Amino acid sequence: MEAKTLVLALFLLLLLSQSSAFPSRKSRVHKPCKRLVFYFHDVIYNGRNSKNATAAIVGAPAWGNRTILANQNHFGDLVVFDDPITLDNNLHSAPVGRAQGIYVYDKKEIFTAWLGFSFVFNSTEHKGSINFAGADPLMNKTRDVSVIGGTGDFFMARGIATLMTDAFEGEVYFRLRVDIRLYECW
Amino acid sequence: MEAKTLVLALFLLLLLSQSSAFPSRKSRVHKPCKRLVFYFHDVIYNGRNSKNATAAIVGAPAWGNRTILANQNHFGDLVVFDDPITLDNNLHSAPVGRAQGIYVYDKKEIFTAWLGFSFVFNSTEHKGSINFAGADPLMNKTRDVSVIGGTGDFFMARGIATLMTDAFEGEVYFRLRVDIRLYECW
Amino acid sequence: MEAKTLVLALFLLLLLSQSSAFPSRKSRVHKPCKRLVFYFHDVIYNGRNSKNATAAIVGAPAWGNRTILANQNHFGDLVVFDDPITLDNNLHSAPVGRAQGIYVYDKKEIFTAWLGFSFVFNSTEHKGSINFAGADPLMNKTRDVSVIGGTGDFFMARGIATLMTDAFEGEVYFRLRVDIRLYECW
Repeated sequence: MEAKTLVLALFLLLLLSQSSAFPSRKSRVHKPCKRLVFYFHDVIYNGRNSKNATAAIVGAPAWGNRTILANQNHFGDLVVFDDPITLDNNLHSAPVGRAQGIYVYDKKEIFTAWLGFSFVFNSTEHKGSINFAGADPLMNKTRDVSVIGGTGDFFMARGIATLMTDAFEGEVYFRLRVDIRLYECW
Repeated sequence: MEAKTLVLALFLLLLLSQSSAFPSRKSRVHKPCKRLVFYFHDVIYNGRNSKNATAAIVGAPAWGNRTILANQNHFGDLVVFDDPITLDNNLHSAPVGRAQGIYVYDKKEIFTAWLGFSFVFNSTEHKGSINFAGADPLMNKTRDVSVIGGTGDFFMARGIATLMTDAFEGEVYFRLRVDIRLYECW
Repeated sequence: MEAKTLVLALFLLLLLSQSSAFPSRKSRVHKPCKRLVFYFHDVIYNGRNSKNATAAIVGAPAWGNRTILANQNHFGDLVVFDDPITLDNNLHSAPVGRAQGIYVYDKKEIFTAWLGFSFVFNSTEHKGSINFAGADPLMNKTRDVSVIGGTGDFFMARGIATLMTDAFEGEVYFRLRVDIRLYECW
């Protein structure tokens, strides 16, 4: 091997090594560094279910109130929630954490929402929190919100969470499947 | 070329290559990887404009109500919105997406707000969402909020959005110009 | 030195150089690139303190109102705030900025909250904002929320803020100590 060939070979090696060190930023298909799937269960207070309710309307438009979801696709209803997180789709499974935060119905013509919330874990399996924000056009089969940060086991996490309505019963109960893919893990 | 010279040359090459691979983190003046400018239009419900309104007061302080913005610079008024996004400053231009989320007036002495919202796109031009959060001291000519995440075409985006009040009519209509500069593009 | 040995040596050099260029992502103990400690002071409006109040209940559940924090650990109370930030734990020290945003009590059984807010600075010391979101299980001595972005001096910041309740007086005043550690600085 000559010196010139060597320089060329090493230059290629260097390029190769760099691109493989940070593949997710370059390639079109990104591979998550962590993936987690959970379900969470929301039981909205309706004036009669105060024992079971995990969520309550706390803001409503002038034409609405706080025990019945408003007309016009609930536009303007702001809900606070503390929902159990489970590993399967059974409301009565042992919760592995809590989903806590707010959502607000934000469109008159169809159902859509905006979410700001956290998953809070304090078990042997997971300790820490994952923070989310984003639009939830809930008539779509799946929709993506952002993982905007994390603490504890999820220190500095960023990624995408795909929401899917797994069940919807009247205007009292819904269950979301959340497929979390983190692309920044520390 | 001798072996030693070669090692030195390659070491310099390596340093050079690495620093140029991540210039934005090193230089003082950052260049966005993507830049987008939009306008969005907010028509607040005032008891008489339910057809045109794109936003409604859903929370108010004890001294306020939900059809008139409160005294003391609207301190405590929480607004839910679903505002059309346009490419120019004309309310009647074809919307290219929706700005959805909440803002809250948060200071008694002057107008300031706090925003949590998303831009939602579903056109041939853009599919996906951009998520924002931050303080909006709206008496300043320009003010910056954070792009905290994105989905679809804006997968994992981070950056800065500079807001500018482009029009303000009574207490019913305002228009914001949003200059989005992303510094993390995947 | 032979050519082969040289290739090997340079390959090792390359690996070494790369791992040292991004130590924070690899090591288990992360060192912040910036650390800041502040206090902020929240005086909730209770119907009698409108002059001093820096925060007000603007959303409440059906069983609550907007001058008295609700039963069931204030579940559902949504508060808007514009709190002074100080360098020490004295409410009457000169403020160095404002903490602005919302918090919501989100659990019936114990006190917990969810926060979305910003620190806004406009002094010779600091210009810009730091944006936060996360769960605040406020009965814990310390709890972590995410720094989800920043502007100005805190351009593109990410990190962790550890909250500690430094004082709590009746249901009117509390003071939080905030220990901000940024792990992404631009």
